Amino acid sequence: MPKVLVATEKPFAAKAAGLIKAELEAAKYDYEFLENYTEVSQLHAALADAEAVIIRSDIIDEAALNAAPKLKLVVRAGAGYDNVDLKAASAKGVVVMNTPGQNSNAVAELAIGMMIYMARNKFNGKSGSELAGKSLVLYGFGYVARYLAKIAKGFGMDIYAYDPYIACEIMTKDGVKPLKSVAEIFSTGDYVSLHIPATAETKGSINWSLMSLMKPGATLINTARKEVINETDLLRCFEENKKFRYVSDVEPGCSAEMMEKYGDRAYYTPKKMGAQTEEANANAGVAAAKQIIAFFEKGDKTFKVN
Amino acid sequence: MPKVLVATEKPFAAKAAGLIKAELEAAKYDYEFLENYTEVSQLHAALADAEAVIIRSDIIDEAALNAAPKLKLVVRAGAGYDNVDLKAASAKGVVVMNTPGQNSNAVAELAIGMMIYMARNKFNGKSGSELAGKSLVLYGFGYVARYLAKIAKGFGMDIYAYDPYIACEIMTKDGVKPLKSVAEIFSTGDYVSLHIPATAETKGSINWSLMSLMKPGATLINTARKEVINETDLLRCFEENKKFRYVSDVEPGCSAEMMEKYGDRAYYTPKKMGAQTEEANANAGVAAAKQIIAFFEKGDKTFKVN
Repeated sequence: MPKVLVATEKPFAAKAAGLIKAELEAAKYDYEFLENYTEVSQLHAALADAEAVIIRSDIIDEAALNAAPKLKLVVRAGAGYDNVDLKAASAKGVVVMNTPGQNSNAVAELAIGMMIYMARNKFNGKSGSELAGKSLVLYGFGYVARYLAKIAKGFGMDIYAYDPYIACEIMTKDGVKPLKSVAEIFSTGDYVSLHIPATAETKGSINWSLMSLMKPGATLINTARKEVINETDLLRCFEENKKFRYVSDVEPGCSAEMMEKYGDRAYYTPKKMGAQTEEANANAGVAAAKQIIAFFEKGDKTFKVN
Repeated sequence: MPKVLVATEKPFAAKAAGLIKAELEAAKYDYEFLENYTEVSQLHAALADAEAVIIRSDIIDEAALNAAPKLKLVVRAGAGYDNVDLKAASAKGVVVMNTPGQNSNAVAELAIGMMIYMARNKFNGKSGSELAGKSLVLYGFGYVARYLAKIAKGFGMDIYAYDPYIACEIMTKDGVKPLKSVAEIFSTGDYVSLHIPATAETKGSINWSLMSLMKPGATLINTARKEVINETDLLRCFEENKKFRYVSDVEPGCSAEMMEKYGDRAYYTPKKMGAQTEEANANAGVAAAKQIIAFFEKGDKTFKVN
């Protein structure tokens, strides 16, 4: 049976590791856990007889691939995979996958949590406002946005989305109203939540021409990437829209000026933590194990990224 | 037409005041707003020709009632009414009402906000846990608990309630599973949220015999009153249940010791703020105006408390 290496310099939680083992044992796969390793050479040695490897932030570069002659599949337990050299993997015929969506509920819960936290003035005891009845616009309608829509519905929010890559029917089925343009996102939302990747096209794209459309007192929520925001324009938005608020699961480059001048209307987490929950951790590990089994048993390459 | 006095030493927000005026004007009632008054004598003078009065934390005692010979109805815009002398009002045939439920969504949103805040380690950037799939038990199934159930359902929580005064059918209709005893509340919940009043019967009732039943790592949420907790036993619960957490919308008497010893597992707001939102404020004022009109037009005494 295929030999699976679980190589995690920063190990899975014990519960998650147990669930991964259970999946692999049920499929009667051989497996080895390499945890807390301190030298790259340990990883390379462990890769020698692996046909599949589950990693977290572990580096699979050309040297690692050269050390893994039997390797057919790399699964990154998580969404991002810039720790894997996709070109080198492709050149050697190694399939690379991620496990998208497994941490999406974690991000969505943090987004709504930060929305409440800001609506209630960071829990300072003063009178705030409620989410019920407010409009929430989701810019992008991927996994995180869909969980957020489901949660926001429970609050009685009025939910809209814009995503040029997703059919409107998928939104309306979830009770979400499709918008027709990026401009509409910013003019419609009491809350505008960003769910777009950081690409050449999106970097700096949230700029004054969009932020100037926001309602007085609207709140912008960024659990995506800081790069999508034009920070000069963000500061201008604070200055011109006197009740504008910004919450971010990442420290902006302009954090010092932002907090000094507009600290009561701004909040950011000390480091990116949206995806960081024990459940997301376990989900991603289990998904990785299942994807390995589906690949070897049925040739399933659904989550291939190279 | 009846003359209504709106006497608010701490005024309604402008929007709320506008909505109250609109209600009274639509019914063609006379009204007067007495805001920001500094002397009780101003209140008493304004009461001279009032047939109904809307108050917030304003004092309606025997002296105020004596100054109001035409008064038939006092409506406290809010839930609590210990600023009104109910006995004196009854003796004079004056009906006293509150406006229950109008601030309940505000409290429910704060409760879930504090649950996320604590589940994510007060947003400190470290890995936390999710609400999805966890059990939430509501001790008491009044207005706040029902809003909280609706919200928690959006998170995919498994919701239970215990309330000896509410029929099980009312819970099951809302998708909430009825429990049969107070003990079950504490043994069932990953999250246990208190929605009981502070009465002779409930004061200090959340004690070790109940808290000792809680799951390892369970979270107790108190948006009710601090008096319902036995604080000696609360500290014991922190000590013996090593992952137990407590979030409270009111500072406990034992806050200094609690934060010093168990600060990473405890959180409280600097002052009670659950009901403090602009929406709750407006809702309560409008409800008060509507109750006055229903009282004079139809003899409706639904929310009479004396």
